[in-house]
Amino acid sequence: MEATAQTDSLVEQGVSATKVMVMEQPGEGPRVRMVLQQCMGAQLMVQPPDEGSPPQFVEIRRGLIIYICFLRGATKTLTEKMARTALTVRLSESDDGKLVSVLDLPGDVLIIPQATLGGTIKGKVMQYHKNIAKEEGLQLYSEFVSIFRKTYERNDKCQTTGTVVRYGTYGNRQVFSCQTNGPYTHLIEM
Amino acid sequence: MEATAQTDSLVEQGVSATKVMVMEQPGEGPRVRMVLQQCMGAQLMVQPPDEGSPPQFVEIRRGLIIYICFLRGATKTLTEKMARTALTVRLSESDDGKLVSVLDLPGDVLIIPQATLGGTIKGKVMQYHKNIAKEEGLQLYSEFVSIFRKTYERNDKCQTTGTVVRYGTYGNRQVFSCQTNGPYTHLIEM
Repeated sequence: MEATAQTDSLVEQGVSATKVMVMEQPGEGPRVRMVLQQCMGAQLMVQPPDEGSPPQFVEIRRGLIIYICFLRGATKTLTEKMARTALTVRLSESDDGKLVSVLDLPGDVLIIPQATLGGTIKGKVMQYHKNIAKEEGLQLYSEFVSIFRKTYERNDKCQTTGTVVRYGTYGNRQVFSCQTNGPYTHLIEM
Repeated sequence: MEATAQTDSLVEQGVSATKVMVMEQPGEGPRVRMVLQQCMGAQLMVQPPDEGSPPQFVEIRRGLIIYICFLRGATKTLTEKMARTALTVRLSESDDGKLVSVLDLPGDVLIIPQATLGGTIKGKVMQYHKNIAKEEGLQLYSEFVSIFRKTYERNDKCQTTGTVVRYGTYGNRQVFSCQTNGPYTHLIEM
């Protein structure tokens, strides 16, 4: 509120609105951060080994690895927007060399919750003050995963080709391996 | 210049300097972007196969994978600062569970040039207008790698334990694989 009033006042004073912006309030900045990598295959542990039970893994073939982190202020709406973006942004190389979306490829998707992505460096340590509360993060993460699963389930091409969506366990240590012909690492923030 | 004059003028008008900042000029924003991941092992192709010659790979064991991207306005000074940051930030889990720097671990380092990290999303495609010119990027990349190599060469613990710095070929497709007990993916921008 105060911030807007200040901007208005500056504009009245003849300061171009395009030249001035008010400092972000604490907690502003990106609310969802995503790192995307292309892969030819990846394996992720979703259940650590436990007294006699071996660890459980999920696996994908060619497709997209999505590291996702929710920060304070992240909402369901923003989460949906981010999921749609990841599904439709043209970053996957098709067989004829064109860039298409992972959905159009169609390629597998591996979603990895990655709270560390919300870190801010301070001196020699990372701080995670901007991360969302764990419970809220889990809700948004589940929502994010759900959009991918539904989209793939309803997509004929995905069904015919057997492409899959796999995802990590929120809060777990993400033990995994991947193989890629070029990760083409991208950062998308909202 | 103009931007500074404008801020001064606003301050004279009684607008708190801490509340107002002038819009970034085109090309401002982060100038070096780095994504860090912890690994237990990684392999990177540094020379694609060529008429009869097999591809050449470099390999690291436990340590740090650094994806690095230089954007417009990146300088040698900033590159040095980023390298020092990556060397000293405490993100590596030591055997007793403490977080230490990769240099103190000591752990191997794999540096991967990753121009795609400079992308900005526009609709369904990524644009790379903010990336530095290729020649300049190569110079800064070489500088970045050089700092790691020299630091490791001069460090007794690294020499004794045989920890190494490996790096990708600038401009190449980065064919690689990695294994991790938890990537703890971090983003650092300067």
